Parts: sequence; structure tokens; C-alpha cells
Amino acid sequence: MRAITGLHEECGVFGIVGGPQTKAARATYYGLYALQHRGQESAGIAVSTGGDILHHKAMGLVSEVFDDKRLAALPGTMACGHVRYSTSGRSLVVNAQPLVVRYRGGSLALAHNGNLVNAPSLRATLEQEGVIFQTSIDSELIANLVARADTADIVEAVRSAMRIVRGAYALVIMTPDQIIGVRDPDGIRPLSIGRGENTWMLASESCAFDAVGGTLVRDVEPGEIVTLDRGGVRSYPPGLARSERLCIFEFIYFGRPDSIMGADTMYAVRKRSGGLLAGEAPAQADIVVPVPDSGISAAVGYAEVSGIPFAEGFVKNRYVGRTFIQPEQSLRATGVDLKLSVLTDVVRGKRIVLVDDSIVRGTTILRLIRKLRAAGAAEIHLRVASPPVRYPCHFGIDTPSRGELIANSLAPAAICSRVNADSLAYLSIEGLRTAVGGKGSCDACFNGDYPMEVPDEGDKMGLEAKETDYAAS
Amino acid sequence: MRAITGLHEECGVFGIVGGPQTKAARATYYGLYALQHRGQESAGIAVSTGGDILHHKAMGLVSEVFDDKRLAALPGTMACGHVRYSTSGRSLVVNAQPLVVRYRGGSLALAHNGNLVNAPSLRATLEQEGVIFQTSIDSELIANLVARADTADIVEAVRSAMRIVRGAYALVIMTPDQIIGVRDPDGIRPLSIGRGENTWMLASESCAFDAVGGTLVRDVEPGEIVTLDRGGVRSYPPGLARSERLCIFEFIYFGRPDSIMGADTMYAVRKRSGGLLAGEAPAQADIVVPVPDSGISAAVGYAEVSGIPFAEGFVKNRYVGRTFIQPEQSLRATGVDLKLSVLTDVVRGKRIVLVDDSIVRGTTILRLIRKLRAAGAAEIHLRVASPPVRYPCHFGIDTPSRGELIANSLAPAAICSRVNADSLAYLSIEGLRTAVGGKGSCDACFNGDYPMEVPDEGDKMGLEAKETDYAAS
Amino acid sequence: MRAITGLHEECGVFGIVGGPQTKAARATYYGLYALQHRGQESAGIAVSTGGDILHHKAMGLVSEVFDDKRLAALPGTMACGHVRYSTSGRSLVVNAQPLVVRYRGGSLALAHNGNLVNAPSLRATLEQEGVIFQTSIDSELIANLVARADTADIVEAVRSAMRIVRGAYALVIMTPDQIIGVRDPDGIRPLSIGRGENTWMLASESCAFDAVGGTLVRDVEPGEIVTLDRGGVRSYPPGLARSERLCIFEFIYFGRPDSIMGADTMYAVRKRSGGLLAGEAPAQADIVVPVPDSGISAAVGYAEVSGIPFAEGFVKNRYVGRTFIQPEQSLRATGVDLKLSVLTDVVRGKRIVLVDDSIVRGTTILRLIRKLRAAGAAEIHLRVASPPVRYPCHFGIDTPSRGELIANSLAPAAICSRVNADSLAYLSIEGLRTAVGGKGSCDACFNGDYPMEVPDEGDKMGLEAKETDYAAS
Amino acid sequence: MRAITGLHEECGVFGIVGGPQTKAARATYYGLYALQHRGQESAGIAVSTGGDILHHKAMGLVSEVFDDKRLAALPGTMACGHVRYSTSGRSLVVNAQPLVVRYRGGSLALAHNGNLVNAPSLRATLEQEGVIFQTSIDSELIANLVARADTADIVEAVRSAMRIVRGAYALVIMTPDQIIGVRDPDGIRPLSIGRGENTWMLASESCAFDAVGGTLVRDVEPGEIVTLDRGGVRSYPPGLARSERLCIFEFIYFGRPDSIMGADTMYAVRKRSGGLLAGEAPAQADIVVPVPDSGISAAVGYAEVSGIPFAEGFVKNRYVGRTFIQPEQSLRATGVDLKLSVLTDVVRGKRIVLVDDSIVRGTTILRLIRKLRAAGAAEIHLRVASPPVRYPCHFGIDTPSRGELIANSLAPAAICSRVNADSLAYLSIEGLRTAVGGKGSCDACFNGDYPMEVPDEGDKMGLEAKETDYAAS
Repeated sequence: MRAITGLHEECGVFGIVGGPQTKAARATYYGLYALQHRGQESAGIAVSTGGDILHHKAMGLVSEVFDDKRLAALPGTMACGHVRYSTSGRSLVVNAQPLVVRYRGGSLALAHNGNLVNAPSLRATLEQEGVIFQTSIDSELIANLVARADTADIVEAVRSAMRIVRGAYALVIMTPDQIIGVRDPDGIRPLSIGRGENTWMLASESCAFDAVGGTLVRDVEPGEIVTLDRGGVRSYPPGLARSERLCIFEFIYFGRPDSIMGADTMYAVRKRSGGLLAGEAPAQADIVVPVPDSGISAAVGYAEVSGIPFAEGFVKNRYVGRTFIQPEQSLRATGVDLKLSVLTDVVRGKRIVLVDDSIVRGTTILRLIRKLRAAGAAEIHLRVASPPVRYPCHFGIDTPSRGELIANSLAPAAICSRVNADSLAYLSIEGLRTAVGGKGSCDACFNGDYPMEVPDEGDKMGLEAKETDYAAS
Repeated sequence: MRAITGLHEECGVFGIVGGPQTKAARATYYGLYALQHRGQESAGIAVSTGGDILHHKAMGLVSEVFDDKRLAALPGTMACGHVRYSTSGRSLVVNAQPLVVRYRGGSLALAHNGNLVNAPSLRATLEQEGVIFQTSIDSELIANLVARADTADIVEAVRSAMRIVRGAYALVIMTPDQIIGVRDPDGIRPLSIGRGENTWMLASESCAFDAVGGTLVRDVEPGEIVTLDRGGVRSYPPGLARSERLCIFEFIYFGRPDSIMGADTMYAVRKRSGGLLAGEAPAQADIVVPVPDSGISAAVGYAEVSGIPFAEGFVKNRYVGRTFIQPEQSLRATGVDLKLSVLTDVVRGKRIVLVDDSIVRGTTILRLIRKLRAAGAAEIHLRVASPPVRYPCHFGIDTPSRGELIANSLAPAAICSRVNADSLAYLSIEGLRTAVGGKGSCDACFNGDYPMEVPDEGDKMGLEAKETDYAAS
Repeated sequence: MRAITGLHEECGVFGIVGGPQTKAARATYYGLYALQHRGQESAGIAVSTGGDILHHKAMGLVSEVFDDKRLAALPGTMACGHVRYSTSGRSLVVNAQPLVVRYRGGSLALAHNGNLVNAPSLRATLEQEGVIFQTSIDSELIANLVARADTADIVEAVRSAMRIVRGAYALVIMTPDQIIGVRDPDGIRPLSIGRGENTWMLASESCAFDAVGGTLVRDVEPGEIVTLDRGGVRSYPPGLARSERLCIFEFIYFGRPDSIMGADTMYAVRKRSGGLLAGEAPAQADIVVPVPDSGISAAVGYAEVSGIPFAEGFVKNRYVGRTFIQPEQSLRATGVDLKLSVLTDVVRGKRIVLVDDSIVRGTTILRLIRKLRAAGAAEIHLRVASPPVRYPCHFGIDTPSRGELIANSLAPAAICSRVNADSLAYLSIEGLRTAVGGKGSCDACFNGDYPMEVPDEGDKMGLEAKETDYAAS
Repeated sequence: MRAITGLHEECGVFGIVGGPQTKAARATYYGLYALQHRGQESAGIAVSTGGDILHHKAMGLVSEVFDDKRLAALPGTMACGHVRYSTSGRSLVVNAQPLVVRYRGGSLALAHNGNLVNAPSLRATLEQEGVIFQTSIDSELIANLVARADTADIVEAVRSAMRIVRGAYALVIMTPDQIIGVRDPDGIRPLSIGRGENTWMLASESCAFDAVGGTLVRDVEPGEIVTLDRGGVRSYPPGLARSERLCIFEFIYFGRPDSIMGADTMYAVRKRSGGLLAGEAPAQADIVVPVPDSGISAAVGYAEVSGIPFAEGFVKNRYVGRTFIQPEQSLRATGVDLKLSVLTDVVRGKRIVLVDDSIVRGTTILRLIRKLRAAGAAEIHLRVASPPVRYPCHFGIDTPSRGELIANSLAPAAICSRVNADSLAYLSIEGLRTAVGGKGSCDACFNGDYPMEVPDEGDKMGLEAKETDYAAS
């Protein structure tokens, strides 16, 4: 329940084309299910069936939005789907995707992950030409551009739209005949091609292919357009492509550990980053404790390289449901946290290397350190498996404003003192790049080196989402 | 879960502008609640607050879609709302109203009751110009026309759209500053102006004003545009107006008995039509039995004029919920009907005048007569308080195709035989007009005399909805 | 959510035994559905299958508590069920019926309508013997008595319990082998035997037999025990029987209009009472207006005998759901009532005979008269189709305490003045008995002539429930 | 929807007595929330308020069964609660706890964790005396025994019941005045005393005290009765006590990692058991991979002692909701598992030590090993941090029948071959006892040395529940 304004979030997209036996909506359900970590706010599936596009979308998890009856009402062998990130207060079913529209060329379903940096000006321009907008999602903007392109060829129309928009986008577009995949010229958001028995697929991450018994074929290239139909995959030369700048936070935090981007799983990259961190920033300590769950992979790497034993210092309560009632302030002030407990006898009297994948606002880590101290930890050496986050993201990640980024205003020493650690070290950007391997990446959040001109701040958003994971919701 | 195609239904609209104390969303809730008989499929409310328009809409009854929390999240002193007719299989939340859009002039919320006869061609034209459509409701068409009008004046823009659309429409449009009411040049769909303490309102029927403690001021005139703000109501000359052709089925069936259109309540018109029917078509009988609930008012009139005692012959089970499980076919074949029972000792051995307001397909009345016969009725004289329905509606009523209208292919004598009555008489069109009083009406469903050119058949729909009232759903 | 205390309400019971094809749970669903007016608080069905008794019960309407899946999980050819009256604040799922217990004789399901006047003392006695109670329903008391009876014969055990309990009870008891029906020695609560194709049934009212395609065979006699199995019905001599004292409010208000008790439908009795009332208490008036829906049948009778035209003066909004949000007090004070509207042009300037079936607290009728006056009624002559209710019920009807019964403290003239009528007349007890016909009845609520000794006041309840029908809920 | 039969499960209990400011129901909510891992089927809370006991219980998680409104309806400063284990098909709300009863002594609420081995004979005896049973929970049996005890002193009555029942029980009993805690004479099920500011508590595990800002005081002793009221805790000599035989599976699997029984957290015990296992059964391997989540703590210990790096080989999808739709058999046959994925690049070509806490049926581990092999693991050395489970539990753990226990019929070498591991070793019972520390334990599931005579098999249940954690549900 909100006004329509320009908000953009991290999301997951999926598309599939199969043979006569393929239950495309069901496969999309499983694919989206595997991508659920990319968005829990809303879910949607559209199917193409006999020239028509049917769809259903609603607020909630994939497993809440769809049941057998809903899937049975979405017949057909071609489908696409979308999951959207949940951030409080911005929830509107009208913003759920895929967006399904009719235009002169017929029907289209669009699912988008990313953020267009020139959306406000494009929107203003189109409004001046009499266009109305019913949502605040970029997909609507793209659909309008496709519909207004001066061509009957849908690939041409998509290319025409690509010439106008600027920003990050991984798009899955479904016509009654085919699925089209598009990745922005910088390749900021991920999109991969997979194949199963008699099926071709697109997905934000390869784990979605595994979920339907398929395998990763390759990534869509920056600026590339691909079309999928029963005949297979066709590629259209990425005329607009630049060198790849895949969002580095996919490796650090977003991607599911078993997803492969480039050559490795996210888990391997993260563990490696932890190992490199141990080399760059050793510590005299008794145990390596991860921040659950985000720091586990890096902590395993740190422990292995440093030889300091890995130990769980915290326990998460996995049953925290969405209707959970928070403790009163009085209780919370005393450190009671129903979602996360310290293992007192593990940490008491110990010198601890506390490992997390990144620090954004610094509020969560402060709370964890407070808990460790209360439980009797002797020393706490905070190690972060990525550089300080100092610049907001403009390409689909919901980061806080620059002012809220703790590393924007404070140097590491000051942060160390603020979060009450005994020492603090970040992984260097070089170290992180080594961990990531050869894949070119956008690491502007660390150094401000954006792949393109970005708007002044104002409408920024927040990586911090993950930090609020343990917080009152 | 359906493709986007052109479907149109009977609906109810409401709008209110108040003073600083007015809880506009709450008042709209009550207004829509009173209009619930006009549509049970979906409900929506939009409020204007500080330049923004917030809204919520969903499938279901007003009392299901909204609760205190939902209403509290819709603050403000200006609001509009909509209820939509429920017909199976056409339910898509995307088609719920009000439609809220942004355009170059800012934000708009539109709620529409009616049907545009030139919607398909307008849609095609706009698509050729690059417009995309996300819904199958006429409101989206109208919003596009308003947005493309070559003027910054919203009233001018609305008038410009009125010059292009043809058909039936009662519109409530909300900008951040005012509420605009529009009625089509023929005045086919109703729209009234009401006032309460410090508030001005628009509604499809006057019963909505009663529901918020207000009173009817007057009907919006055919072709008239009115604007409501805190300063009151302003009227814009109905340049396009023709003489009023208010849908006669509002009097016969749709309007709530206590709503006033013209000078009288619907109840008064209906009772009068029953009395006139008794004069035109007397019967030798023992009791006058209404078809519940649609024939009650006319039966009361028939009984009063004829002197034959009024008697209830049927009992409705009021607890039939939406999740109701139907009896198996075997049971239903034996006449078991959980929603309607015959009062055997009332009808046994009796000569009965069975009164209904209208007959569309004839299937319901056939079933009722079968029940009466099974219960031992001696004679059944069917009396219908309106003429034979022979032509489909193109102006917002969901009628069956011409072929399904029993009076389209059969003369009264044949219908009498088909439904197994002993005699059958319809009220004459003159009689009905007398009952209605001075209000000019569209009675094209009886005589094919449409207020404007209408498309060939094909995409028409059905009045029959009311007949299925007792049927398996 | 309440403590366990002794509360008792009006309810409906049903039982069925069929052949191999009988879907007993489904038939019970339809039977309970037809009895829904006897209780909307909770619903339950138990089936006997292979020696075991399975059951499901929950708060809500039959159509809410059960769906296809729930019914499918209750296989078998023998079943019983129960619906319970809804009164605010007393809702506990633990009190839903049937009560299913294991005892030395195996499994039993019990469904009870009525109230035991010696429940408190029986309960105390049993507690002294070490019995624990988990509910506040009489069924639990009866189950304990049956289980403790010194016999292996279930009919004997039931008879033994009947010797101990005093009060009103219509019982349906299911063992793995048979259904047992019991009616208290005074026959205060109704219970009938029905038969369908290959099935034998028991139900509180005959309308439940119609709902499954069956027919009424006869009433269970006061004090009679009947057993139903595939072989048919067996009757056990009603050793304890006294002359029948069937609750007269079944005729006045509770029974569904199409149910038959004795020789006539409830509708016929009610219409007859209205006719007799017209004879006893004529009025100079223009129209006869019923209180909807309770006064309609009597008003039809009054109109017919008096020759004064019947007219609907009120319209009920049928869409009031359970989640309905009440108008604020300020609005309600102005007479706004979303559930009931006056038809102003029907009543304006008219002398009205306002007919209701009964008056309990007098609060509803006062509100209706206020509305009629506000709408311009010239005179209001209140006619009540039963005598003044002056004594509380102790036999299963939820009446208010004696002090709240308006006729307990005020004479008709004073009541007339209190409710602001121009005249007031009640039907005489003789008139009511004439209308009811030969069936012996308990009319203690009018004259205090209870069929047995009753406890002092204190834990009584209220008929008034029906009056609150239009009230804020 | 089931017949009433004797089923028994693992559960969690909680009780609290506070001062005038204590919101006991809310505290119980948090306490149960922390105990949610002990049972997800149903949840219930009872409060004592002014002599009455109010309660609410329903199927579902604590956070689903209760919301702010429900808690607000349960006022008072004394409360008890219960969570019950979820096993498919045995779900009946009638079996939810606490059981609230009235008896001659007033009201009681009972919450029970454990299983009475003589329940069937006790039940039969009581039935012979005329007792009826409405549930299949032992609490009802205990309540009957308490109610029939020949004393007005509740502690005496409880002690009297303890003399009759045999088996495992941790009981929290609430009267209107006090909370009573009872632990069976062998101390098989855990129960601890905690204290907060102005509050005294009982709980199955100490993590529940942390959740309300309190601390562990001590365990209730085997056979001890304690009473808690505002004045504090009173202990009644454990006349029946024997030496402690606390269920060893509390340490191995059930207890939450941060709960303390004896001197250590469960995490510490488990990690220690992994370390001892590394000493007893070393392996030549590249990585130590835990079965998530049950084997993580032991794997950390194994890795630390062996010096072989710890590595995550699997990823769990945390978003699997309860309405999750399973993949079709065809997909599942190909190894697709939406709940658990292998990290291919972690395990490919590696010699793996696969660590789990225990093996019951062996079906889960077989599936995991299959996945590892499919992902290219070179060798798989299965290490189990507890001895072979060869005997079913009779004391409240839902184990499979003896025949389904893989170690009952197969020796380790045969199991190794059956699950397709390259080697298999279990921790010795001595090793496990060392890990557990001084606490006396019941380890009958390993050696058949039950603390008391147990019934022949037949109605046994299954530990296996945890194995089905990843299975289709």
C-alpha cells in the first residue's frame, strides 16, 4: 500500500522452453524455488499457451503463492517466472512480476532483475508522450520501449530498447512463441543458459537448472540477446557489449553457495576469500567463529589456512516465522535475541577470529560482538572477507545511503573501535579479485568506479538488508 | 488466471471528498459495502494524501478485502472505490479497480461502471501508436486517452476522452486535488451526487449515501462532468448529452430496493410493476408466490392489486458460503437443492401465480416450477414483471448471447410450454415504463432499440448471472 | 478462550446409517448444512469405519470446517454430526461436538441438543468420584454416565443414563455398529427419523432429510430410544416418557420454515399465527410490514386475514460478512445501519402494522420503530405473533436473565410506550396453541409452567440471540 | 483425523510463575519458541487467572498458533505451555497440550513430555472402572490418576500418581495457585529450573530460560517434585528416585546446541564426540564434510582433532515451506533434491570424511552418499558420532520398529556396503559417555539396557524422524 515511486530491488528470473511433455509452470516453480534467496516478497509465473499468455503472481514465497491447483491452471510448455526481494513497506502486488502486457505485436511477459539508472528521465520522456504508468518497476518502462519500437521483429524491438536504457538488467521476455534472454552491455546482473532433457532454460543462477534436473550451459554474454525455442538457442551478436562487470556481491553474498558463475561455485570463491584473508590479516586466536550464515564459507577458509580451529559460536533459531512476535524492548535491551544465541561454553575465555563476508552498516556485527563479550570472549578479532563498502549501488542492490555506510565516514580503525572489536581487517580488493578468479566484476561499492555515469544520491537503497537478517522485523 | 481479453461487467463506483475530520477510506468502505450487490468479485479503494495516491485492491467482498489495518494504511480525506461483478473464470486481480496510474499530469485513480462499445477499435488504434495494455478493463483505455489529451486541464482532458469513447460509462476519477464524476451522454449507467456533513460524494446508487449518513442531492446528468472538492460541486455543461436512457434493468433487478433513481425507490417501481402486471394479466389462483428474492417486490404488488394472498413458497438457505460443496449429480438429479427448498404444505393443491422480475435463459424458472409440481402444486401461472428479454446488452450487463435468450427464439406460448407453466404472461413495455415513471430508459434488451450503434454479436455476456443465483456455482 | 464453565446452547444433530455405497460423511455434511440455522459456532462430523471412529470438528460454519479433502478423510457408511450455536465469548473448540470417547465398551461419538437441568449436581457427584471434565458440554456428562453404567448393553447403558439426567436432550450416539437416537422423556427438543434410498437417518429437523434426498418417517417419541443400523430402525419402549412438551419456540422461531414437526411446516404454523393475531388484534392501517426475516411468515398471515396490504418496509444487506467493520459510534448514533435499511417511500405517511414473531429484550424492535418514525411513518401498530416472554428457558435456549426480559417487568402498555409504538398486541397463548395444532408443547417461557423443577436463576441464557441479528456483532 | 490410539512423541514443556508485572503467557510464548525444535505439530498455552485456567492450543508452530490478540486474551502471572512433535498422520488437535481439566480439587493444566510404558494397562484398568478417554495422550491418564487420588493435597495426589505410572515423564502441572514440576524416577526426560527477574520457571531445556532473559538454576532431580509460586521453589523429597538415566539422544540430537544439561552445552558435547571419533576412527582424507545440520558440531570436532580441513559439501534450501510441492518421481529418481544440493567443486575428486551424529534407518545417508558420488567424490569415509542404534525407544522418542533400524539386522561392515561408503566407523559407547561427561544416561537404544521393563514391540515409533528431514514430506 504505497504510492508509485521509483524503487528497485534484487530479484531472480527464470524461463523455460520444452517439448510436448514439459510442464513448464511446474519447472518454473522449482526453478524459482531454487532462486528464492534472491527475493521473498512476491512470486509470479507466466505461461504461453496457444497464443495466449496466462499468469499468476502474488505477494509471498513461491511455495505460498502457488499450489497444485494454481500450477494446473497454468498449462503449456513455455514459461517464465520471477521472485522479488522483500523490503519492508515497499510491497505492492502491482509491482510483482512477470509483467504481462498486450501490444500491437501480441502478448509479452517480462521478468527483470536489475535497475535502470536512466529510468526517471525515460519515464518523464514517455509521460510527455502520453504514456501512463501503473507500476514502479523497470519492466514497464522496457515494455513500453519495446512496444514503441519501429519494427515488427521482436528481437529488433528489444535491441532498440537496449539502445535507450542504461543500467543493469537481466531480462527474460516471453512471447507466445519464444523466450528471449537479455543481459545488459556491462553484464552487471547475472543470467545463465541451461539445458535439460528436451528443455532449454534461462536463470539468474545455475542452481535453478539443478533444481529441474538440468545443467548449466554457459552464461549469457554482456549485451547478448538469446532466443530459446524448441529448436534450441540462437544468439544475437552483442553489438553493445562492453567488458563484463558482473556484480561482485553476487560472489560475496547474493549467489547461492552451489551456483556457478564463471568457473567456480560461490562457496569456493567465498572459502578462498577467507583463506586469502587469513594470509593478509592473520590473528593470534583460539577459534574462528563465523557470523551465521553469511560468514560460514569464508570462516571455513580462514580456519583452514590459519590452522586455527573453526567453531560455531552462535546458534540460529530456524523456526522464526513471519508472524513472529518480538520481545518487548525491556527484554531486548538485556540482550535477549530469540533468533540467535551464543554458545557460551564455546566462546568463554577464548580469543576469537570473528568472520563475516562484508560489513555494510555495522549494526549487526556490533550486536554480535556485544553478545560474545557478554558470554566472556577474551578477544575478538573481526575479519571481513571483502573490502569496506563505501559507495551505494545503483544497479539493483538495495544499499543504504552513503551516510549510512559505516565505511564511508569511518576508517577501519574507527570502525574497529565503534563495533568494539580488538582488531579489524578487511580483505583487499586484490585479494577479493583473486578469490573471484577471472570474471570481470563491478566493484564500485568499494571504490566508486561505476561502469557508467550514475545519478546523484537521493534514491539509494540498501545492501543492509542482509544485516537486518537477525534484527526485529 | 486468464489471458487478457475484452470483458466487461456490472460494477459499483464511489467517491468522497471531505473535511479534515473525514476518514475517506472508511467512508468508502461503507459506501462500497452498500453497493456490494453490484459486484462481489473484487474490491478496491484509493486515497489521495499529500499529492500521492495510495490504494489497495484484491479479489473478494469489501469486508474480506479490507480490515481495520488496511483502512488505517489508507489515510486522507479524499477517496474513491470500486466493486466488481463476479462471474466465474474471469477473475484476475489485475482487473480489479480503481486503476491507479501516473501520467504527465501526476497521479490518477479511475473507477468505471459500464462498457465501451468501441473499446476494441480504440484499443487497436492505441496499440498501433505503441501503447501497451496490462488489463482488460475500459478504465485503462480511458486513462490512456486522458493522458494523451493535448491539454493540462484535467476536465478538458476528460472531455477530450469522452469525444472518443462510445458506450456506457459512469466514472469516478480522483486526482490528488479533486474527484471527478462523469456519466455517458446517454446516461445509460447511473451515477448520483450525495452530501453528508462536510462531505460531497458520488455513487452508483443512493443507498451508498445512506450508508455513511448522507443524503442524495441529485443524479449526475447524461454527459455531465462534475468536480467535487472541499468547496463543493462544480458542473461542466454536458455538451455531448442526449436524452437520458438509463438502463431499465437497474429498476427491474440491479438497483438495491432502497436506492432512489428518479423519484422513487427501486422497491416502489418493482411493486408498482407487479400491480400493473396483475391488471394486464390476471389469473385465477389461490396464492401469489414470488421467486426469491428477485420476484418478491413485484409479487407483493401483484397480490395487493389482484387480491390473491401473497405466500412464500420457497425457503432460501442463507448460509451457502463460497466454499460450499455441491451435492453429487445423482442427488441433484432427484431435485435436491441445498440452496432453495419448497414449502410443501403451502403449495400443495394450490393454484399458484408465480412471479419473477424477468426471465433471461429460463433455466432457473424451469427448475422452480419442477419443484412446485413435485410438491403438488395444482396450477402454475407464471407472471413476469418485465417484457421478454430478446436482445443482449452491450452497455455493461453480462447477458448471454442472443441464442441463449429464451425469448429470442421462442414466443411466450412456447416458453410457457418449455418451462412447464400453465399460463405465462409478461408485463408490457408500456406497463413497465409506467412503473418506472418519467425517467428515460434504455430498454434495448426488450426491443433492440440501442441508444447507439452496437457491434455484432460475439463478445456479449449475460444477464443470466442472476438466474444462476440458486444454481451450482 | 475461556475457563470451563457450564454453558448450554441450541444446536442441531444428525446421524445416518447407509449401505455400501453411502458416503456417510458427505450426507452428514449436507444434513448439517440444512441445520446450519441451529448453530453457526462450530461443526463436527464423526464416522464409524472398521471399528474405529474418526472425526473432525472445528469452529465455523459447516461449509468452512469441511472441504472435499476433509470429507474424503472421513470414509465409511455410518456417521453423525453436530452444529453448535454461536454466542460471543463462549467459543471454545473443546466444546465442539460430536464428542468422541473411548470407554470399556469401545468407541462412542455423542451429539447433543438440549440442556440438563441437573448438570451441575451430576458433575459435582461425578467429580467426587474422581471423574475429570475437559469440556463444558452435557455430552461429556452423558458419556461418563454411559461408561459407568453397570451393563455391557449400550441401549441399557443409555437407558441407565436417562434415569439419572434431568432436562432436555435430543441425542445422537454412534457406536462402531449402530446409531442410537434418544429424546428426553418430555420431548422438549425435537428429533426425527428419516429414510433415504438405502439409508436411515436421525435429525433435529426434517429439512435435513430433504437435503439428502430423503423423507421424514416420524418423530422420535418423548423418552424413546431408537437404534438404526443397516437392518432398519428398532424402537425401545419409552419407559420414562411423559406427554410431549416440544419447545414452542421451535415453531415460533427456531425451526426452518420448511421443516415439519407434527403435521405442518413451521411456515404454515407461523402464517396461521399471524392470521389469528389479525383476528385477535386488528388494526386500522395502510400496510403490514414484517420485521425481516423473523416476522415475514406471520406478517403474510396477518395481511391475508386483515386484508391490509403486505409491504416490505426494510431491506437487509445480505453481504454482511463476519469480518465486517462497524461504523463508528457517531455514525451509528445518527441511525446509520449497514445491515438494515428502511424503504422510505414505502413507509412515509403510512399507518403501519409492524409484525414480529416474538419480543424478548425489546431492543431490536425499538431500533426498527425509530427508523420507521425517522422515515415518516404515520402510525406504528406493533403486533407480536406469540405471547409475552416472561420466563427464561432452562432447556437449551440461550435466553437472557429474567430481568432482561422486557415482558417480565413491564405490562404490554408499558412496553408499547417503551418501544414507542402507537399500539401493541401479542397473540394469546390459546391463539398460539391453535396455530401450532395438536403437538403438546413447552410454553414455560410465557407462563413459567416448566415441565420439571428448574434451578434458580443465575446461569440462564438468552433467546435474545435472534434479536441481536441486526445489531453490532 | 484419526481414531484415538496410543501414540506418544517427543515434546517440550514450559512453566512460569511471576510477579504482578509478569506477562506469563508472553513469556511462555518465548519459552516455547526456543523449544520449538522439540515439536512443531501443535502448541498450547494455559494461564491461571483469578482461580480460572484459560487456555488456547492448536495445530502449528508457536508463532502460527499465537498472535498478539491471542496472547492478550490470556492474562495472568502464571502460565504453562507445550509444543508437540510433528509426525505425519498423527495430528489431532484433541491431542494438543496442555490438557486442561476440572476435577474435584478445581482446575488443572498438564503438559507432559515422555511416554508411559504401562499406559495401555493403566488405561484398560481405568476404563474398567468407568473412565472415558477423549485423547491418546498420557497427560489424560495422569490427570485421571491425580483426580482419583485419595487426598486433597495436590502434591500428594501427584506423588500417588507417580506410584502408579511407569515410564518417562517430565511434567509441568499448573493449578490456580502454583506450578508443579515432576521428573520421572529415572530422570529419562529432562526438566530444568530457571529464574528470571521476579520469576521462577520450568523448561525442558535451558535455552528457554535464555529466551526470556533468565538463567538456569539447576535440573529437577530424578523422581523429584518441585512446586513454584511467588515465594520461590519448594522441593519434595524424591522418594522414588533412582540414579539418573537421562536420554542420551538429548545430547546426540534433540537438545538445542546452546542448551545446558549437566555442565556443558549440547554443542560442546557433540564437538567433543566428533573429536573422540577422530581419535577412535581416523581416516585418510582431504576434507571433513558434515551432514547438515545434524552432523555439523561433530564434524567440527573431527576436523579439529584430525587436522583434516572442515568443508561444507552440501547446501540446504532454507525456504522449503510446509506447502511445498514435491518434484515428480521422474525428477526425484534423477537425484534432484530441492532441499539439499551438493557443492560439486568442493567434493569433486576429494576423499571425504562424512560425519553425522547418528544413523537410524540409513536411508538419508544413502541418498547423501549417492549425491556425493554423483558429484565426483573420490572416497567417502562415513563416521558416526554415536554407536549403532539397535533398539527402539519406549520413553518418548518416535523410533522405527526394530526391523527398520539398519543396525539391528546389519553389522557395520554390511551397513557400510549397503550405504555405499568406503569405510564406516561409529563412536564407541565409552567414547560417547566420555563426551557426555558425568551425567548418567539411558543408552538403551544402543545396548537394550532399558531402565525398566518395557513392553514387547508393536507400538514403537521412530528416531528416524530426523532422517526424514530432507525427505519428501
